[in-house]
Amino acid sequence: MSDQRKIRLGAFLRGPGHHVAAWRHPDVPANPGLSLKHYAEGARTAERGLFDMAFLADSLVARNGDQPIATFERTGHVAHFEPLTLLSALSALTEHIGLVATASTTYDDPFHMARVFASLDHLSGGRAGWNVVTSADPGAAANFSRDRHLNHAERYDRALEFVTVVKKLWDSYDDDAFVADKASGIAIDRDKIHVANHIGRHFQVRGPLNVARPPQGHPVIVQAGSSDAGQDLAAETAEVVFTAHANIGSAKRFYSDLKGRLARFGRSPGGLKIMPGIFPVIGRTQAEAEDKYDAIQDLIDPVVGLALASGLLGGVDLSSYPLDGPLPDLPESETVKSRFKLVSDLAHDRQLTIRELYKAIAGARGHYQIVGTANDVADLLEEWFTEGAADGFNIMPPIQPSGLSDFVDTVVPELQRRSLFRTAYEGETLRENLGLERPLSGSQLLATQRA
Amino acid sequence: MSDQRKIRLGAFLRGPGHHVAAWRHPDVPANPGLSLKHYAEGARTAERGLFDMAFLADSLVARNGDQPIATFERTGHVAHFEPLTLLSALSALTEHIGLVATASTTYDDPFHMARVFASLDHLSGGRAGWNVVTSADPGAAANFSRDRHLNHAERYDRALEFVTVVKKLWDSYDDDAFVADKASGIAIDRDKIHVANHIGRHFQVRGPLNVARPPQGHPVIVQAGSSDAGQDLAAETAEVVFTAHANIGSAKRFYSDLKGRLARFGRSPGGLKIMPGIFPVIGRTQAEAEDKYDAIQDLIDPVVGLALASGLLGGVDLSSYPLDGPLPDLPESETVKSRFKLVSDLAHDRQLTIRELYKAIAGARGHYQIVGTANDVADLLEEWFTEGAADGFNIMPPIQPSGLSDFVDTVVPELQRRSLFRTAYEGETLRENLGLERPLSGSQLLATQRA
Repeated sequence: MSDQRKIRLGAFLRGPGHHVAAWRHPDVPANPGLSLKHYAEGARTAERGLFDMAFLADSLVARNGDQPIATFERTGHVAHFEPLTLLSALSALTEHIGLVATASTTYDDPFHMARVFASLDHLSGGRAGWNVVTSADPGAAANFSRDRHLNHAERYDRALEFVTVVKKLWDSYDDDAFVADKASGIAIDRDKIHVANHIGRHFQVRGPLNVARPPQGHPVIVQAGSSDAGQDLAAETAEVVFTAHANIGSAKRFYSDLKGRLARFGRSPGGLKIMPGIFPVIGRTQAEAEDKYDAIQDLIDPVVGLALASGLLGGVDLSSYPLDGPLPDLPESETVKSRFKLVSDLAHDRQLTIRELYKAIAGARGHYQIVGTANDVADLLEEWFTEGAADGFNIMPPIQPSGLSDFVDTVVPELQRRSLFRTAYEGETLRENLGLERPLSGSQLLATQRA
Repeated sequence: MSDQRKIRLGAFLRGPGHHVAAWRHPDVPANPGLSLKHYAEGARTAERGLFDMAFLADSLVARNGDQPIATFERTGHVAHFEPLTLLSALSALTEHIGLVATASTTYDDPFHMARVFASLDHLSGGRAGWNVVTSADPGAAANFSRDRHLNHAERYDRALEFVTVVKKLWDSYDDDAFVADKASGIAIDRDKIHVANHIGRHFQVRGPLNVARPPQGHPVIVQAGSSDAGQDLAAETAEVVFTAHANIGSAKRFYSDLKGRLARFGRSPGGLKIMPGIFPVIGRTQAEAEDKYDAIQDLIDPVVGLALASGLLGGVDLSSYPLDGPLPDLPESETVKSRFKLVSDLAHDRQLTIRELYKAIAGARGHYQIVGTANDVADLLEEWFTEGAADGFNIMPPIQPSGLSDFVDTVVPELQRRSLFRTAYEGETLRENLGLERPLSGSQLLATQRA
């Protein structure tokens, strides 16, 4: 393997695939969100393609469950596995691929979160990652006995402290603390225990954790918020950023902005990998790709399309506006700042009607979508990668399982031919494969500070 | 398989085994609490023995982590997997055995709990069970940003409502709600959705869940509290009760008392299986069994033995009393009512010194322990089973892996020879194997009420 910088790849697994109408496609099995066989096939296909990671989104509400019944009953992928349990099962069915789960800091406790991700890291031999989100959907509050959803600033303030506490708990013990000396009866080296004793604005957590330090030191921290507060959280804590851009210009600006924030936190640019989402519809010819795309687009139910647009615009009700008229001027959303801007800019820049808007986002939900041959997709990834728009990509298959296997069978070999992608896993852990440093343990940190 | 009533068996898996000094035993691997291979071997051994379930305890603190460092450093099995992630991985490595995880209602939300157990039930094809606990350890509060641990009555009040909400969320959809009709675009049958809309004293939870109804309808509810409040909770909600008794008289009284409470909740005695814990030390001869037992007993560190007794007595400090003097009179514990009584009664009835007390509970922690041949163990189980003290047993191997394989290889065949135990799994799900009814779905319940 040459030392040349390589593209990182994530497989964003979503039961039926990412297109809002994917579940209606003839090639998609019924109710794949609760099929372990289906997810195992996806993860193994990604592993066959030498992907760095499989990535799972999450939500703390049933999608569209608070919408009128006529919308809810037409919504696909409402029922699906909880990510940590699913990835734990997949850890036993895969060997190399990273396993990244989304989990929210707004409706949980750092002790639980530290435990389950440390546990997954041990189960998988160092392949866990945590996509830190703050739950944009205000409906979650009603499922968690809260009067109201926290606003954007409160959520990010809480998230930063939450991640800090989780890392302290992961560092409860040095890597070699559990000496298990049967003869002397000493199970743990007392000099290698670091009790968190955290007292902060949001959390008071004593520790120590009841899991040994994770094989990776810390599971890889992923972040997806692209607002100003989201970028600051990412610059301070994240090692992978998943982000949505509708064009290379936007992606380049984001890339340089976010990498530029790292120095403020004493971090180097290589310590954070930026991976935009890419929604590829791949055909052997351009015409075949377009036919594939049209076949899925034709399955969009207007009711569901409208709900999708409403959701990405922060829950605004669009039902009183004509479908074939323009998107009205809307007040900025307090809950989904960056996605609101992306979608409303898309509508206004391209002067789309509401119907055109939801058709434009029905696949990629604001991420970049490309309809073309494997060579076209490879050209795109190469351009973004070499021109400072991306360190890698989170691939969002339109439908599953064929959307991912198309990519693995046709785009991956082309990227390898161009020496842009690995031909074998370099390391044992997700962190090693991504080329990320292993965090120092508590005692190593103390030694560094003393030196 | 005859219709004769059969013994139910659980394998209570604990990394090194149940004896407090098990981790020091030469046959136990180092740090097995974080070895998937080790737990997989345990679960597969239990499955080979046709056990109904593998059972995992849990705690929200590092064991003895709030004790003086001289105690903590000598404590085994501090670091271990989180149960839901571990059982999810084991679900992919086993086929038949039930997977029961302990999880607390005091430091979590019903929406999370309903999700993860429903997810495990789907992953495992209907083999999940939830051991509902309220966290007796007051140290958990300090890990969860709480000023204080809830008292016993508050915890049980909260637990009852918690379980109610979880069941409502599991019933968010009828079993056949997800019709996934690609042609019409109807994904969910609107008449088969049941939104919880729960508003109670502790919880306000809208629902619906984002997981389909579990294969078992509800994962099996297990309970282990034996206090008056614990028994009421069990009588109202539990389908399996795990309990600790030092003699058959106590077990029979408990059995008849708890079964007698069921009618008040409209339940029949067969709907709740009572399974005391049994700690068996098995030898080919009585002398061999006793040698095995002595070999483990000799490994007990007095510091750790004392901490164990303190913990089971609700955290009282025993360090100022002479080890070879009697247990002092102690105020009743507010946190661990039934275990306090069991352990203090044991000390007083047998007039044990503190040292004798911790040696007496170092293996079984107050559960029944037997040191003998496979035939002796089979005799004991048969007696308890036929005389109305038990429907089955939760087997607590002294050390792992050999303690469980001893039981499977020698006691199970003897129970089968006596026609007291199955010779093949009867069903596909844990519920079917236990002979428990499947809960009616929301629409079935409504139809019943209308009829």
